[in-house]
Amino acid sequence: MNLKHTTIPPGESVDLERFDPADRCGLSSKEDSEQLLQADVRDLTALQEIFAARKERALLIVLQGMDAAGKDGIIKHVMSGINPQGVDVHGFRQPSAKELAHDFLWRESKVLPQFGRIGIFNRSYYEEVLVVRVNREALEAEGEREAAESWHERYEDINAFERHLVRSGTIVLKFFLHLSKEEQRKRLLARLDDRDKLWKFSDADLDGHMHWDAYQRAYSEMLAGTSTTWAPWHIVPADRKWVSRAVVGEIVLSALRDLPAEYPKPSKERIEKSALLARALEGEAEKGEKPSG
Amino acid sequence: MNLKHTTIPPGESVDLERFDPADRCGLSSKEDSEQLLQADVRDLTALQEIFAARKERALLIVLQGMDAAGKDGIIKHVMSGINPQGVDVHGFRQPSAKELAHDFLWRESKVLPQFGRIGIFNRSYYEEVLVVRVNREALEAEGEREAAESWHERYEDINAFERHLVRSGTIVLKFFLHLSKEEQRKRLLARLDDRDKLWKFSDADLDGHMHWDAYQRAYSEMLAGTSTTWAPWHIVPADRKWVSRAVVGEIVLSALRDLPAEYPKPSKERIEKSALLARALEGEAEKGEKPSG
Repeated sequence: MNLKHTTIPPGESVDLERFDPADRCGLSSKEDSEQLLQADVRDLTALQEIFAARKERALLIVLQGMDAAGKDGIIKHVMSGINPQGVDVHGFRQPSAKELAHDFLWRESKVLPQFGRIGIFNRSYYEEVLVVRVNREALEAEGEREAAESWHERYEDINAFERHLVRSGTIVLKFFLHLSKEEQRKRLLARLDDRDKLWKFSDADLDGHMHWDAYQRAYSEMLAGTSTTWAPWHIVPADRKWVSRAVVGEIVLSALRDLPAEYPKPSKERIEKSALLARALEGEAEKGEKPSG
Repeated sequence: MNLKHTTIPPGESVDLERFDPADRCGLSSKEDSEQLLQADVRDLTALQEIFAARKERALLIVLQGMDAAGKDGIIKHVMSGINPQGVDVHGFRQPSAKELAHDFLWRESKVLPQFGRIGIFNRSYYEEVLVVRVNREALEAEGEREAAESWHERYEDINAFERHLVRSGTIVLKFFLHLSKEEQRKRLLARLDDRDKLWKFSDADLDGHMHWDAYQRAYSEMLAGTSTTWAPWHIVPADRKWVSRAVVGEIVLSALRDLPAEYPKPSKERIEKSALLARALEGEAEKGEKPSG
């Protein structure tokens, strides 16, 4: 798999037109890709157990992308099979009145993964420089709001927040699922045409489609402004679901592979005490119940 | 599989000696049992999607049992494969100072599953009538505490709390993993002997083993006092892991099977509006990007 072009270099401007949403990242076929994903999920499952046991680091996965870009599918196909005890998924849509009465990083801060756990944000505080921005700019254009906000300050706050998380031991992986407008159109149509999928459709999904160019601009600037050395953005071609799933699986796996792959080493005292306890248990009279299974 | 004896009838006293921790519940072999579990997990996965889409009910699974009874393994083996976006696992060990400054149902109340989601409590407020009770009674016996608390009042509070949850649309499934003292001894020894498992061992695990009889009494009374028509206890033979996993899988699956197995039906208005939106999308000029994958 070729992941060379999927990481956005910090400090560079981003032209989304230069990234092909239908790119295969060197994957030859759907079948090969699914096999690779399966193998990666197996390895992920094993490494996650050690990660959970060591409790030294946390892993935060941020998923962003237009509606129907495949965020739910990534969670289902990449993270299923992993022990649910080690994974927390949080979705962030319309904030509540209480959440709006706090700073824009508050609701995510409350549910950050603890050491040993993987947290997945299905959308996140990045919505604050995406949907919030597009809507405000639409109102500004109609003269219903004054003065452009400084989105740059929000980037700065996000970057400082993530730097703090990384310094404290959290690994932050950010994925932008890059979908073409035409593929989104097809997927939204499929939802509208299938009564078993219609529940997934919200009228708001269409807003994004109608304001496509404004969203692409907001995404470009966001990606350029918040791809940092400590938490770079990965741009994932999303027109083929089997490509995006394999790419995300591979990047998550490689982050875990960079960590020590051993269960926590007990201290000398711990080992000595355990030997004592084991001897006591061994000496205990057996009670006659001897299940063989 | 024979699950007749696994549900504790409300209002009856419970003699744990009468339940065999090594019972096979009619399962012929480990292989058969694992195949059954695999099939059940597949069905669970499919039904969970509909459950999540309907958002009409929540499912709360409470796991209790002595240390090394297999609670973690149940979560891993029964719930892996299910979309992690629909499952929240919460463990409750030693409460924090802040949690102790609240009523004993508070910390669990805050993380109850919302409609459409499955919440798993790995231990729960039941610890309040188990470890808390055993420790207090030990202090009382040594004359360091006065007067026995009324554990009966706690059962009443728990029952009323669960009745409220069930009335509000939550399905409450409670599993007691019934392990023999001898099998616990073996499993604790295995943890002590294997340096890759030693991290899982805590000295507190041994306390439970030392006060085995007091715990069994506390469990018996708790099961009798809190098995209700709205939230009965299931007693799961736990000496064979393949039995307990298959039993829990089967009971969880059957709870989901009792619910409507269809995706939410859209309203007439919704269907009409969707048709309009679909026509608008169909009319949209294609942009030339035609991914084939």
